[in-house]
Formats: sequence, C-alpha cells, structure tokens
Amino acid sequence: VQPLTADEAELWRAWEAANATLSQVSAEVAAETGLSEPDLAVLTRLHDADGGRLRQSELGAVTGWHRSRLSHHLRRMTDRGLVAREEVPGGVEVRLTTMGRAATVRARPVHAAAVRRHLVQVLPARDRQRLLALLSRLAVSRPPGS
Amino acid sequence: VQPLTADEAELWRAWEAANATLSQVSAEVAAETGLSEPDLAVLTRLHDADGGRLRQSELGAVTGWHRSRLSHHLRRMTDRGLVAREEVPGGVEVRLTTMGRAATVRARPVHAAAVRRHLVQVLPARDRQRLLALLSRLAVSRPPGS
Repeated sequence: VQPLTADEAELWRAWEAANATLSQVSAEVAAETGLSEPDLAVLTRLHDADGGRLRQSELGAVTGWHRSRLSHHLRRMTDRGLVAREEVPGGVEVRLTTMGRAATVRARPVHAAAVRRHLVQVLPARDRQRLLALLSRLAVSRPPGS
Repeated sequence: VQPLTADEAELWRAWEAANATLSQVSAEVAAETGLSEPDLAVLTRLHDADGGRLRQSELGAVTGWHRSRLSHHLRRMTDRGLVAREEVPGGVEVRLTTMGRAATVRARPVHAAAVRRHLVQVLPARDRQRLLALLSRLAVSRPPGS
C-alpha cells in the first residue's frame, strides 16, 4: 500500500477537523440534556411518527443502523425509561414514553441551535446543496476489500 | 428556537450518515493495530518530523487540539510506551519511542487503505477539491453564542 499522498492526507485531515467541530453539536446537546446523538436520532423519529410509535424494523430503516446496534441501543434507552418496547403481531413496536417525550421536547431546540451554528450558518445555501450531494455519496458504505 | 427545517435536518442527517461510514477508517485501524485515530494523528506527525521529535506546543498547533486534551492524550500514550516526553529549555519535547515507531509503520498502510476506500476513491478529483474547500470552512470552530 502506498502512503497517502499530500493531497489525500490533507483531505482526511480536513474531514477530521470538520468532524471535530461538528462533534460539538452532540457535545452541546449532551451537556444540556444528557441525551446522546443516537438517543436523539431515535427519539426524534418516534416523536415525528404517528402516535409516537414505530416498528423496530422501520426505525432500523430510517436510522440505517445495523439490527444489532439498534437493538442494543434500544435496550439501553428502555432501561433509562425513554422508550418502551412491546411485541406486536409480526414484530416489535417501539414507543416514546412520557419521559422520552419530555426529553425530546427539551433537546430539540438545543440541537437545532447547535446544528445551525456549526453547520447551516457556516455555508451559504448553494454550498449546503453541494455538501449534501457529496455527503450522500460518502455515506454509501463500502465493505472492506471492495 | 425554530425547529430544523426539512432541508436543515436532511443536511445534518447526511453529515451523520457520512460520518458513520468514515468512522470505519478508525475502526479498521483500531481493529488491526490497537491504535485510535488520535494516537495515529500524534504518531504520524512525530514520525514525519525531523528525528521523530516535536515540541508539545508544535504538536498542539498541527493537531489543533486544546492544550488540556493534548496533554491528557500524551500522558496516556506515554503510559502505553508509544511516546516519551522530556522537559527541554522553553518547553516539553515529545518523541517517538521504538515501540511507537513500530506501531506507526504497522498502522500507516492500514490507515492509507481505509482512507482511500472510504473517502478518496468514492469521489473524483474535482469533487475531492470541492469537499476539501467545504470542510475547511466547517472546521473553523464557532463558540456557543456566536
């Protein structure tokens, strides 16, 4: 394997630097609400769903998480009283608890403000479109060896 | 605070999805070498420096880390035998140990292959330039309230 070229290394370091800045979004939400980014990803989807409930399989589809990661995370959120899970015909339903709903309502404005400060407001609309297109291509996972 | 608009939320989710994919770079390096991304950032800089040594302050400048984070991380790397620190006139010098040098040589091709697979090869050169420019703007940290 050839070492990274200067251009390649520069791009990787730029990614890391941007990521370090954008990780402040999670840090600010966690500091003010105790919720992690994955917590909020789940809570937000449930909050926006009809009746605050989704099939676990639907939640997997919208978050893009592997089944084992989702299951593990939901177990921890259940233990913390943020969501409840119950068996229903053909699967498992996940619903927001009263505590989960309150936490979501508290966290959302903190999250929105942080996303605006660190991401949205930094770039004009046209560059946000470009970034979205580039990120969408990077998001496609490539297994090792591909 | 207004909730995120659909466009804003889409951009944030795209960031998170790309980040989830690119976090595989660190995961692959860690799985094969036991080194974290911050470990490798420090080791690579020292390896590329004259004589495998840098002032701690220079290391802070090139990594962009806060002094406390750098100091904490270097202490852990010292405990693991990857680097050594010594007081020199006007500051602290950090140097690669033999073990640190061997770890760097082992990790670099793994890292280079992962960066290529998940980042470089996914985008044509022109888009990599665009991404670099966008990331560089995102990397500029904005303190809360700014």
